[in-house]
Amino acid sequence: MNKRTESGYACWLDYRLIPNEPLRSAYRKRCSQLVMIGDSPLLQAARRELNLALGVMLGEAPVEAEEDAGAELSLPVLVVGTIGSSQLLNPLASLYHFDELGEEGYVIHGSGSDDNRIYLSADADKGVLYAVFHFIRLLQTGASIEQLAIRELPSNGLRMINHWDNMDGSIERGYAGRSIFFHEGRFIEDQERVRDYARLLASGGINALTINNVNVHSQESKLITDEFLPDVAKTAAIFREYGIRLYLSVNYASPMELGGLSTADPLAPEVAEWWHGAAKNIYRYIPDFGGFVVKADSEFRPGPFTYGRNHADGANMLADALAPFGGEVIWRCFVYNCLQNWRDRITDRARAAYDHFMPLDGTFRDNVMLQIKNGPMDFQVREPVSPLFGGLKETNQLLELQITQEYTGQQKHLCFLVPQWKEVFDFDTHAQGEGSTVAEVASGRLFGRARGGVAAVANIGDDASWSGHILAQANWYGYARLAWNPKLSAEQIAREWIAMTFGLDSAVERVLLGMLLSSYRIYEDYTAPLGVGWMVNPNHHYGPNVDGYEYSKWGTYHYADCHGMGVDRTVRSGTGYAGQYHSPVAERYESTALCPDELLLFFQHVPYTHRLKSGKTVIQHIYDTHFEGAERAAQLAEQWKSLASLVDSARFGQVLDRLAHQAEHAEEWRDCINTYFYRKSGIADERGRLIY
Amino acid sequence: MNKRTESGYACWLDYRLIPNEPLRSAYRKRCSQLVMIGDSPLLQAARRELNLALGVMLGEAPVEAEEDAGAELSLPVLVVGTIGSSQLLNPLASLYHFDELGEEGYVIHGSGSDDNRIYLSADADKGVLYAVFHFIRLLQTGASIEQLAIRELPSNGLRMINHWDNMDGSIERGYAGRSIFFHEGRFIEDQERVRDYARLLASGGINALTINNVNVHSQESKLITDEFLPDVAKTAAIFREYGIRLYLSVNYASPMELGGLSTADPLAPEVAEWWHGAAKNIYRYIPDFGGFVVKADSEFRPGPFTYGRNHADGANMLADALAPFGGEVIWRCFVYNCLQNWRDRITDRARAAYDHFMPLDGTFRDNVMLQIKNGPMDFQVREPVSPLFGGLKETNQLLELQITQEYTGQQKHLCFLVPQWKEVFDFDTHAQGEGSTVAEVASGRLFGRARGGVAAVANIGDDASWSGHILAQANWYGYARLAWNPKLSAEQIAREWIAMTFGLDSAVERVLLGMLLSSYRIYEDYTAPLGVGWMVNPNHHYGPNVDGYEYSKWGTYHYADCHGMGVDRTVRSGTGYAGQYHSPVAERYESTALCPDELLLFFQHVPYTHRLKSGKTVIQHIYDTHFEGAERAAQLAEQWKSLASLVDSARFGQVLDRLAHQAEHAEEWRDCINTYFYRKSGIADERGRLIY
Repeated sequence: MNKRTESGYACWLDYRLIPNEPLRSAYRKRCSQLVMIGDSPLLQAARRELNLALGVMLGEAPVEAEEDAGAELSLPVLVVGTIGSSQLLNPLASLYHFDELGEEGYVIHGSGSDDNRIYLSADADKGVLYAVFHFIRLLQTGASIEQLAIRELPSNGLRMINHWDNMDGSIERGYAGRSIFFHEGRFIEDQERVRDYARLLASGGINALTINNVNVHSQESKLITDEFLPDVAKTAAIFREYGIRLYLSVNYASPMELGGLSTADPLAPEVAEWWHGAAKNIYRYIPDFGGFVVKADSEFRPGPFTYGRNHADGANMLADALAPFGGEVIWRCFVYNCLQNWRDRITDRARAAYDHFMPLDGTFRDNVMLQIKNGPMDFQVREPVSPLFGGLKETNQLLELQITQEYTGQQKHLCFLVPQWKEVFDFDTHAQGEGSTVAEVASGRLFGRARGGVAAVANIGDDASWSGHILAQANWYGYARLAWNPKLSAEQIAREWIAMTFGLDSAVERVLLGMLLSSYRIYEDYTAPLGVGWMVNPNHHYGPNVDGYEYSKWGTYHYADCHGMGVDRTVRSGTGYAGQYHSPVAERYESTALCPDELLLFFQHVPYTHRLKSGKTVIQHIYDTHFEGAERAAQLAEQWKSLASLVDSARFGQVLDRLAHQAEHAEEWRDCINTYFYRKSGIADERGRLIY
Repeated sequence: MNKRTESGYACWLDYRLIPNEPLRSAYRKRCSQLVMIGDSPLLQAARRELNLALGVMLGEAPVEAEEDAGAELSLPVLVVGTIGSSQLLNPLASLYHFDELGEEGYVIHGSGSDDNRIYLSADADKGVLYAVFHFIRLLQTGASIEQLAIRELPSNGLRMINHWDNMDGSIERGYAGRSIFFHEGRFIEDQERVRDYARLLASGGINALTINNVNVHSQESKLITDEFLPDVAKTAAIFREYGIRLYLSVNYASPMELGGLSTADPLAPEVAEWWHGAAKNIYRYIPDFGGFVVKADSEFRPGPFTYGRNHADGANMLADALAPFGGEVIWRCFVYNCLQNWRDRITDRARAAYDHFMPLDGTFRDNVMLQIKNGPMDFQVREPVSPLFGGLKETNQLLELQITQEYTGQQKHLCFLVPQWKEVFDFDTHAQGEGSTVAEVASGRLFGRARGGVAAVANIGDDASWSGHILAQANWYGYARLAWNPKLSAEQIAREWIAMTFGLDSAVERVLLGMLLSSYRIYEDYTAPLGVGWMVNPNHHYGPNVDGYEYSKWGTYHYADCHGMGVDRTVRSGTGYAGQYHSPVAERYESTALCPDELLLFFQHVPYTHRLKSGKTVIQHIYDTHFEGAERAAQLAEQWKSLASLVDSARFGQVLDRLAHQAEHAEEWRDCINTYFYRKSGIADERGRLIY
């Protein structure tokens, strides 16, 4: 077992000799010869990856043949290239509409009986790269390649990763070491790791990236200046080879901080001019620069509000600066009053994004996308979907998810987030009647928008395993796969990831699949109950603290008293937030009877004796889920232990250590939450279990 | 008004021309001529101070006459010197027993009618210095100097200040800027401020000092090595001129960290030898070095426990190393389990110091003093007195107080602590029957111990006003005065301080006196109720957080549930802590009926409906004190405002800003505490005031 495997560094591109001899033979038979047409950087990357993967997995790399090799081509052969680039690919032209594949779609085709060839083809080079990674995945997952007729198109145009890396090397909400890009205020010179990162992202179909924190501090503001653009360009070049476009988070106050202007007013001509000049300069270095990601007027970041302007004024000004060069503005909607008075039960942070941005619908430029967090609060274990999805109709949107486990165990706890994200993608906004899912909205399809997609906050750093917890790689992988195709099931994604990361052992698959798929619910069970959220320690957000945010300025309350708890967000008696949804969703959340159990306390203030749909009272539900959640967390470690002889000892040990901590920490969660609510309600556990 | 006054830098040594002309004339008449006998460094300091003070306050410095000046000496004259050093002082010899004054006692004598002379005299130079400061204070406070017959002896042998300064310049629990001693790992070169600090300390009678944090980190461990001893010696020399002996906090693991030994076992000969060598080397630089202050086996600091030894083993080994040179070991008793499980209601942090140290009574060397915090927990607004006072009978003791307002408003809130300290000094332990006060115990008198005294954690830094809040200087001054004489009343100390700091205006005196004397109770009223303590934000300890320490490892709980709250520390049903006191104190704390209201929740767990001696229920007491406390905090600012025309605008503004913040922050306290207990108890305020 090599070091890249043992450390977890290889992740799911962990090519190993396929131990099943008949399977390996069958693959080798179809892959003994390779014809690779074209040599653009993207195709070179594809060729390198294919040779590497096949060489290792099959024990020998394919023989590379020339396109016009004649007789030998009757042998089984892999033909790889864009349609039209070689006559060898012509048989595909009648089978697939290549003109519909766009830049990223691709075809994998091979009919075992009448043709010895497997075709990996596309209309553009990037599609070919994706086809290659897909083909490798087929071999990694032990799929049959005898009959292949795969046609893939991404569901989302933009499939982005956001890094919250600072140039001092720290990562905001990072739980896996330091930045792989920055160190002590500069770029890290050795970019081997960045290249491996690009490979991993491309293998999942990620096509866009920001490398710096949305909270753009002083040093990072200078990334768009001549001081750092040469370095940015070098980094952009690495990602370009893998079809990934680089964006930067920018400081809205740059015209003042960098340009010496006295204002950053978006309507001031000198401000627009400054940004135009800045954009022009960036494109001198990086001709395919993606654009800007902006956190403005949010959590003390500067923005157009300072000048009495709105978000559209701010975003459009930047969009106009980038438009001539093909750039985009990604404008975050995480805007709320973070100096709220906890005594105030009228102001509702959950309402804020909708209240701010809905009135601006239709006023944003075509090259602006609004980046909207999945829920209205902030990446809690359980939140409703943001009502901006389905609310905004004439505005490009990006769904923002969080891979890094800020509130979900910080990569010390196992929490496979794909099931959570699936619920978000599948959520029916009813904006255009039934079937108006978030997946359809975010992609732009529902309202016929040209741009759309998904972005997520990275969970990686310079930790040996990238992600701190090796099993947390499944979130990173899963995000990429869902961004490409939100219809994939959590189970399918988990199966792929397990096979690619740990091989094809059926016991490993069974146990790990069970662990991954149950983990989100387990984590939810032993933490904040019934969608109420928070209850974590302030600032670092790790570990239980029921009142941690109760008397704070952050707008994050549970309002528990000796009678009951929850936030009344109904229209009839609460903040009115439930009314931000379309019918029948609004009615569902408005009604104590209809509101789903798992979101009850997000929408309703109820007594502890309120009966859930499950038949349990709220208080008994709290006790039961916390006892069971902690017990099941302990079982996760036991399940993993059953794999001791099936997983290399290094990865086995790393994961076991984290699971052991999780089991212990889940008990802390259990006891803090149970004790808090027992002391507060005075209602004993029906089953008489130990509460302190 | 000069800058030293306006910034607050001058503190109570704020010499100004006495505006009351008749008073000034009367003083000038008696002080027109000065005969100063002797010129030791201490006497030079006394002479400088006297000339400075008289020159400024009276408009002209006294004429310095020679001892044998003959005829002119019939004029009024101040005669200053040690008894026996001049025939001029002989008239005193028959009036006072100078041999009883020791090194620090002094006499101020002058009979207006038959003798034009005022004598400031003592048996030793240090006593003369103290007499000079006392005499200056008489003039500053407008006292009559016509008839003087003052004989002063300090109540406590050791009157110490502890700095928790780190060499990087930070101060643990410091709220008044950075260290005046250290910066970026080195000593600060310019020591003018250190000299002024020494003057201020000496003026109050402080005679001992540590300059570094009891948590001795890596750099600070090296203070006892040749690398830093030259700097330590320079600092010691400055304090020596003012009668203040320098001590250092040391790292118990020094033999390992500095000496390269493999152990710090106090019974290992090489360890004792190492310390002996270290001590010898220190005394080469500082012949009057005071000794070591040690925090061992406390909050993760190393100590003898590691080697299966006890505190006496550790302290005695160090004491033996210092004894040949006249040094002392001050060994802190702040030892407890700081990894407690919050679920555990048996372990009681309050018991810990007694449980650790009582069995060792009588086993410590004569040059060891145990430094005991006033209460068993940690400088809360309200705690009972540590039962080690009166418990230990054959061990030297030091009472430890905290001037820096860690838990009492961090010099943003006005909290004059002298009333709190008075209660501690006056507390009757009944160790030898009635009258066995802490003042008698700590001084050593009660049990006939040669050594004893008091130490306190400094509240100063490099802030312009030294102490952050100018009114917090009163705590610093008051500590020094009480250390000298615990019988002084809080009112008397406050009056002195007000006059010396702000002059003799009667409105200023009246208003400020009211503010100072009410402030401790006000602060107590709007913070944690009835002695239960804590309820602050973790780590920094500022601001309300009722559950901040409830689920923590620190042993600091209130156990509030929907029925009641408080810690059962009785013998009959609780942790047994109440039994650590002598009769009848033990019985008082044991009994719910007898336990004083203000400590009720420290000793008893009672329902919210329990009636206090005041006739109020616990819950109503909480509401009333919090509404009233916040209201009175607001009044403090109003009272101060009435002095707008009577206090210079700079100091007026500085104090007003802090009082305004206090008023606002007191409302936050009020509302957090009231809301927490209203939500938890469900019991409404009888008076229907607003609770959230």
